[in-house]
Amino acid sequence: MKKKNKKVNAAILVIGDEILSGRTQELNVSFISKWLNDRCGISVDEVRIIPDIKKKIINNILVLHKNFNYVFTTGGIGPTHDDITAESISKAFKKKYEYHSEAFKILEGYYGRKSFNDGRKKMAKMPLTAKLIYNPSSAAPGFMTKNVLSLPGVPSILNSMIENCKKYLIKGSKVHSKTINLFTVESNISKQLTLIQKKYKKFVDIGSYPFFRLGKIGVSVVSRSTSKSKLKLVNKDLMKAIKLKRIKILKI
Amino acid sequence: MKKKNKKVNAAILVIGDEILSGRTQELNVSFISKWLNDRCGISVDEVRIIPDIKKKIINNILVLHKNFNYVFTTGGIGPTHDDITAESISKAFKKKYEYHSEAFKILEGYYGRKSFNDGRKKMAKMPLTAKLIYNPSSAAPGFMTKNVLSLPGVPSILNSMIENCKKYLIKGSKVHSKTINLFTVESNISKQLTLIQKKYKKFVDIGSYPFFRLGKIGVSVVSRSTSKSKLKLVNKDLMKAIKLKRIKILKI
Repeated sequence: MKKKNKKVNAAILVIGDEILSGRTQELNVSFISKWLNDRCGISVDEVRIIPDIKKKIINNILVLHKNFNYVFTTGGIGPTHDDITAESISKAFKKKYEYHSEAFKILEGYYGRKSFNDGRKKMAKMPLTAKLIYNPSSAAPGFMTKNVLSLPGVPSILNSMIENCKKYLIKGSKVHSKTINLFTVESNISKQLTLIQKKYKKFVDIGSYPFFRLGKIGVSVVSRSTSKSKLKLVNKDLMKAIKLKRIKILKI
Repeated sequence: MKKKNKKVNAAILVIGDEILSGRTQELNVSFISKWLNDRCGISVDEVRIIPDIKKKIINNILVLHKNFNYVFTTGGIGPTHDDITAESISKAFKKKYEYHSEAFKILEGYYGRKSFNDGRKKMAKMPLTAKLIYNPSSAAPGFMTKNVLSLPGVPSILNSMIENCKKYLIKGSKVHSKTINLFTVESNISKQLTLIQKKYKKFVDIGSYPFFRLGKIGVSVVSRSTSKSKLKLVNKDLMKAIKLKRIKILKI
């Protein structure tokens, strides 16, 4: 973790036919997003999910790497023919796609020389000069190329690796949030929320989200800001409006 | 549902800060994707998740509507200030953002004239000439503008509306899939999969996905194709390779 910065953002590029087809439920975005905000003060500002097609990976990498401080890719770094993330990133950045000597050693040690077949060796191939992201659960490392960090798609493995991304990231300002759960419907407080949002437009984002829980209808009002003090002011105004409208606050 | 076509595709644009921040788990993509493939033969080829920012919605709508047969948006069509999907789509297509007379009547009837406040009325505002997507669970309709279909973000409401999209869509060829679950690791069959994928490159996509279930490690091999007969040929080759490698098939 290096020097402090104000606003640091990231995009996530999810690579995988199985997510697009609906076969597999995507689970990494919310995990990465929360971790980046809570631990690094980095906000995820865009996510794209694309198929295992080299040209599409290359195009998306080139667009996202220019427009965001960091890009996290998930998926496509395993041993099979449909794992083409490393090769595509090499192509995108015009870097050689070669065995990384340290990754090769790690994998050879993990599998043993006899069982270290071509599929397994493939997981040591990555863009030249890539930096490794160590994998404590299944050895095969992720890697960072320029501002692009490549992680696997299997959630349990990705989760075990995420802390090893930290040393490569510049820290930003954490976004704090405050949630109030109300026993009402959105349209009953929309006018008040609009006024409060306008008043604190520059500092706080207010969102409202309907929920249905245990047969009850409610609204979560979520305020988000890098400033804790501004968040307190918004909260005060919200509580005033809620009292005025005689809306019951739900404790959850 | 109109005339048959071969390849019809779609993109999904998820609009919402709450998804990007990780606060809310995205659940609509897999539902829409499966429904589109199974019921309409339409494949989802890209997904983007973006924040509640007008300019970003406009830019993404313009790019996606050009590159895909259909675009589905989710989120941002409720009664509050952060619901800006309808207004943004109006801007993107240079259409007036106005009350839709039928949507207005539906909502007025649902809430009753006395309770029909400004927040609720807002849900009847949409791009001029938009076609309605009826909502059997909470009245507020979605709408279609050019090739863009806008649905709400709450999964239960979206799910109840999806069938009402059908009449606006041209049907494509359904992608069939066949899954074989194996008691092995990916790297053990990667070579065979590569060869079979190469042989059927033009007709079938083969993906391999590791899984961990009940303490067991395995691989799902998924073949996908619009041709059932080609899928059968691939399956034959796969079974041959599996037998040759003496891999156990897992029944799940």
